[in-house]
Parts: sequence; C-alpha cells; structure tokens
Amino acid sequence: VTKGRLEAFSDGVFAVAITLLALNLAIAGPGHGALVVQLGRHLPADAAYLISFFTIGVIWVNHHALFDQLPQVDRVILFLNLLLLLFVVAIPFATSTMAAYLESGPQSDAALAAAIYGWVMVGMSLGFSLVLRHALVSGFIPGATTARARWAAQARFGAGTLVYVAASVLAFVNPWIALVLYGVTALYYVLRQTPLRRAPS
Amino acid sequence: VTKGRLEAFSDGVFAVAITLLALNLAIAGPGHGALVVQLGRHLPADAAYLISFFTIGVIWVNHHALFDQLPQVDRVILFLNLLLLLFVVAIPFATSTMAAYLESGPQSDAALAAAIYGWVMVGMSLGFSLVLRHALVSGFIPGATTARARWAAQARFGAGTLVYVAASVLAFVNPWIALVLYGVTALYYVLRQTPLRRAPS
Amino acid sequence: VTKGRLEAFSDGVFAVAITLLALNLAIAGPGHGALVVQLGRHLPADAAYLISFFTIGVIWVNHHALFDQLPQVDRVILFLNLLLLLFVVAIPFATSTMAAYLESGPQSDAALAAAIYGWVMVGMSLGFSLVLRHALVSGFIPGATTARARWAAQARFGAGTLVYVAASVLAFVNPWIALVLYGVTALYYVLRQTPLRRAPS
Amino acid sequence: VTKGRLEAFSDGVFAVAITLLALNLAIAGPGHGALVVQLGRHLPADAAYLISFFTIGVIWVNHHALFDQLPQVDRVILFLNLLLLLFVVAIPFATSTMAAYLESGPQSDAALAAAIYGWVMVGMSLGFSLVLRHALVSGFIPGATTARARWAAQARFGAGTLVYVAASVLAFVNPWIALVLYGVTALYYVLRQTPLRRAPS
Repeated sequence: VTKGRLEAFSDGVFAVAITLLALNLAIAGPGHGALVVQLGRHLPADAAYLISFFTIGVIWVNHHALFDQLPQVDRVILFLNLLLLLFVVAIPFATSTMAAYLESGPQSDAALAAAIYGWVMVGMSLGFSLVLRHALVSGFIPGATTARARWAAQARFGAGTLVYVAASVLAFVNPWIALVLYGVTALYYVLRQTPLRRAPS
Repeated sequence: VTKGRLEAFSDGVFAVAITLLALNLAIAGPGHGALVVQLGRHLPADAAYLISFFTIGVIWVNHHALFDQLPQVDRVILFLNLLLLLFVVAIPFATSTMAAYLESGPQSDAALAAAIYGWVMVGMSLGFSLVLRHALVSGFIPGATTARARWAAQARFGAGTLVYVAASVLAFVNPWIALVLYGVTALYYVLRQTPLRRAPS
Repeated sequence: VTKGRLEAFSDGVFAVAITLLALNLAIAGPGHGALVVQLGRHLPADAAYLISFFTIGVIWVNHHALFDQLPQVDRVILFLNLLLLLFVVAIPFATSTMAAYLESGPQSDAALAAAIYGWVMVGMSLGFSLVLRHALVSGFIPGATTARARWAAQARFGAGTLVYVAASVLAFVNPWIALVLYGVTALYYVLRQTPLRRAPS
Repeated sequence: VTKGRLEAFSDGVFAVAITLLALNLAIAGPGHGALVVQLGRHLPADAAYLISFFTIGVIWVNHHALFDQLPQVDRVILFLNLLLLLFVVAIPFATSTMAAYLESGPQSDAALAAAIYGWVMVGMSLGFSLVLRHALVSGFIPGATTARARWAAQARFGAGTLVYVAASVLAFVNPWIALVLYGVTALYYVLRQTPLRRAPS
C-alpha cells in the first residue's frame, strides 16, 4: 500500500504539472493583433511546451520503471521522492519564464531564464539520482546487486544531468543553444532510455 | 502495475484537462455590464465548453475501453500514450481560443481559431490511432487477431479523424459550421461508439 | 477494472474541482487597501468557498458510497457519470460568480448569480439521480431489489434537488436567502445522509 | 474499497494543492525590470513555496502512514478527512498572501498575513488530530490499544499545533520570525516524525 500511494501521489503531481504546462500555449486573444501573428510570435513558447511536456513524460516513464522494480519503499524514499517532485512542480514555472524571455526579453535575461530552466532540470535529475541511489544501496532492487550493475544504472542516468549542466552554462553564450540542447535531451530519452535493464512488463 | 500506472497517470491528465475546461465558463464579473448580457455574449464559450467536455469524456471512455482489453503494455505504448495526452492537454487552450474569437474576433481569425481546434482533434485522433494500432499489431488484444477485425477497429476510429479534417477545412468557409461539426461528432460518439466490440464489463 | 477507472477519473475531477475552489480565497493583495479590510469585504467569497467545499465533499462521499455497492458498471453509467461531472466541474465557476456579485454586484445581478449556483446544483443532483436510477433499474445494487427500497433511495436523494430548486427561486427575492439555504443543505448532508442504507465498510 | 477511494481522493487533493503552490514562483516577466532583480525581490515567495511544499509533503507522508494502519474507515472519518483537506487546500492561498505581503506590503499587513498562514496550519493540524483521535478511540489502529500509546501518538502530533499557534502570535512581533518558525517546523518533521511507531512497510 505504501508504494501504491507514493505512486498515486506522484502520478497526480506529474499529471497536474504536465497539464499546467499547456497554459503556456495561451495567447493574448482578440484585440492584440492578427491571430496568425500572435501565434507566430508565440512559437518559442510552443517549442518550450513541447520540450517540457516530453521531459516530464520521460521522467514519469522512468519513475514508473524504477518503482515498478521496488518490492518496498521506506520513509527516506518518500522524502527523496518529494525532493524530486519539488523540481518537477517547478518545471511549468521554468518553462513559462524561459518562453517569455525568449519571446520578448533582452538577450541577457533570456540567457538567465534559459539557465534557470537548466538548473531546475539539474535539480530534478539529482532528485531522481538520489531516489535511485537510495533504492540501490538499500538493496531494494533485486536485479541490481553487483556494484557494477549499480554503477551502470547510475552512470546512464547521470549523463543527462551533465548535459543539463552544460546547457545551463551555454545559455549565457546563446539561450537558443540551451533550448536546442533541452529538446535534444528530451528526444534522446524518448527514443531510448532505460534506467535499469529489464524485460518489458 | 505498469498498466495501472499508465491508466492512473492518464486519468489524472484527463481529469485535470476536463476541469480546466470549466475556466472557459468564467465571465468578466461586476463592472462589465449586466450579468445577463455578459452571459448572453458568453454563449459560444459555453457551447465550446460543452463540446470539449464531452469530447474529452469520449476519449476517456475509449481510452479506458481500449486499455481494459490489454493484458500488458510496453514502453512504446507509454510514449504513444504521451503523444495522445499531448493533444488532450492542448484541448483547453484550443477551446478557449476558439471561444474567444467566436465571441469577439474578426471572422478570419475565428476561422483560424476554429481550424486550430480541429487540428488539435486530428492530432488527438492520430495519437489514439497509433496507440490502438500498436496494440493491435503487437497482438496485445486477444479478441482481435484476424486482419479483418483489426481493420474494422481502426476504420471505425479513423472515421472521426476524417470528420475533424473536414471541419478544420470548413472552418475557413464559416467557423460556426466547424463548431457544429465538432458538437455533432462528440454527440455521435457519446450516443454510440465502441472502438472494439466487447461484452459490457 | 472498469469500475476502478471510473472511480479514479471521478476522484481526480472531484479533487481538482475542490482544490480550484480555493482560488476563491485569493484577495487583490498589496496596494488595494488594508489587508484586514480586504479580508472583511471578502467574507461572502469565503462563505461561498466553505459551502461549495462541503457540497463537493458530500457529493464525493455519496458517489463513493454508491459505487461501492455496484459490482459492475456499464457504458451508460460511464456517460451518466460524465453528465454528473459536467456540473461538478462547473461548481467553482458558479461559486466565484455568486461570490463576486454578492460582494460588489448590483442586487439584481447577485440574485441571478445565486440562482445560477442553484441551477448548477440542480443539474448536479439530477445527474446523480440518473446514475442512481440507472444502477437501480439495471439491478446493479444487490440490496435494493424491491420497488419500495428503490423508491426510498431515490426519494431521499431527490429531496435535496427540491431544496436547490426552491433556493434558486428564492434567490430573486434575496440572494442571501439562497446562500443560507445552500449552506444549510450542505450542512444537513454532512451531518446525516445515506443514499442507500448500508453497514459501515 | 472505501479506504482506497479516501486515499485516492486525498492524494489527488494533495497533488493539486502542492502543484498549485508552484504558481508562487511566477514573476511579472519581461518589461518589469531586470530578471535578476525580479528574482531577488521574489526570494520571500520562493522561501514560502519551499516551506509550504515540504509542509504539504509532510502532511501527505503522515496521512499515508496513518491510513496505512487503518484496516477500515467509517463515514465519520470521511468527513473529518474533508475537514483536514479544507485546510490543505487553503495552503496555496495562505502561502501566496504571506509571500505577497512579505515582499511588498506594510509591516502590519505582513504580520497579519503571516498569522493567517499559521491559523491555516493550526486548522490543518487540528483536522489531522481529529482524524487520528477518531481512529484511536474507534479502535481502528490495532497496535495502539493502550491509553498510554494513544496519548503518546496524539501528544507527538499536538506539539506541532502548539508551534503553529506560537508562530501566529509571534507574527505580530515580526512576520519573519513566523516564517522562520514555519520553515523550522517543516524541516523538523521532514527529518524525524512518526505519528505512530511502526516498522517500515
């Protein structure tokens, strides 16, 4: 039951966060110029929406794949999971801020906004890594008992964290580079990512 | 468990999206003219709300009927389901934009807004079709093993997609035609639609 | 599984609707007069929030008590349940509109807004009655097979509908009478209401 | 099933409330001064977000730990749980009001806003205590049959309530003292709090 409620609560948070993202699609509406012009100006926000949607989607898929393998959870994991969700819940904010400044902010503010997006992603990745690490060292994952298997699982996940660190630095060179890196990362994980090898369930 | 969480997450997204729709009912409030006048002007938004509510409702019922038949899911379905949800989550945006421009936008913008609504529906239909198709070709649906049964299931669903394509074209003739078509489609599916024949569970 | 997803989806809608209600608590904030004055002016909205919170709570408890007794559901119930949720989802709108006009609208508009609240409640009650009725006539409720037991179950529930009809008429005499009636009804159902007699589970 | 739906509904409310909190992170955006300045001015709101996030998180963990131990629930607990959720749902409002007045309100209004936050927490704590108390006196918790064990469980929880009462009084001395106390309380409960002693599940 414990695990079930952790999953139910997390699913709820993921679901609300991913749906709130869509508020980024909203435009000013009648009286603010031709609709097609408004939509054109709004393309960065749409791109940011797409990237964040699939990023949250990937986190959810990995969250689900990870907890699927845990026969049990403890109180520590409940709070590490909260830490992960703290950053998940901040993604709609990071997305709308980045989108707003890419659309109409000065370049230096757009850089900062794009970097903040990266920092939220780094926080989220670290939160996930802590959950994964605690599950591994507590021996909660039956199929990952050797030190090597544990290391592999963490390394595969940690790579994403490094990309987010790099992107949030490159944002200060050009925020659009960061946006592209965020998009490529999400796409990469959609196409192929398994935090721990397993048969399809 | 895998399937359970896919359903829980999807139910959460459907629930949030369908509840956010109701924000379309909001009016400007005191100081913006007599309430009855405000409500009268707001009727297109109310109609759009009703249509989108039952459209999301129908998708949810079909989603549920489809996954009810799947003994298992795989990673591909998780991501195809995300693609479907990407469009579900965009429905409140498409609804409010269409409503705003039907209420007070110039005719050409109302046409575009009504067409966008149709495109979101087309995307949603295609997302659903991809989930259905993958389930069928992977042999996940025990009762649909013949090529003919598979074809029938997809054809029945694909018909709706064509209506949405047609409506989003006709929107440029007159956006109200599109609105009526969206409403008729939702009503039709409410009254009778079963993606795959099955006994009541 | 069918019933489980109907309940999960409904719980999600109830949860989002009841949480959105709390947006009614929001005040204008710094720069709009002393906080204590703002809060004082906002008391009708707080009262409306309390009433709607417990009204949705009561619906949820009854929804749960009803479906708890159903060994199965059919497609008709899925759609009747959607009809019920259509009105549940409109409650935050009806609440904020009534609160706004009780706070600062002209008396005639406050009357209309309070009546609209009642109409939404009538719609919600009728939706619930239709679900209950379909469950009864389909023989889904094992303990309610006699015509008399069925009648009693419906009568007990229908009484609330009549109160809402009366309140939405009396709103045109004085909207505050309607508000009090809505509050008394919620309180009454909180203190004692069981749509069908049953042992505590 | 009864208990399952209480948990599902509560999880939904917790999930929506905790995600709505993140709306506090939003800033005014382009055209309202340099982003870094806006973010700096917004630090009280970020602190309030963090505190409320973990406060709701702690309530959720305790809610889950408590109901995990209940073999059954009754109608009274359903409504006491609603009372608890009434205050949970008010936390985003209390958070944003406190944050807004700490950021730019006069000192006296900031004091009131910080006190209101404390009152919501007191209400929430009392709601939780009532649920716990009813579960204890009804004998729903197998491992807590002695009067002493029951008293210990309630005392451990009641301590938090007293801190909230104290903080909402001290808010009138200086609202930042209250903010710090709210943060320390959340941190304390994150690091160590078990409403009833139990083996990890």
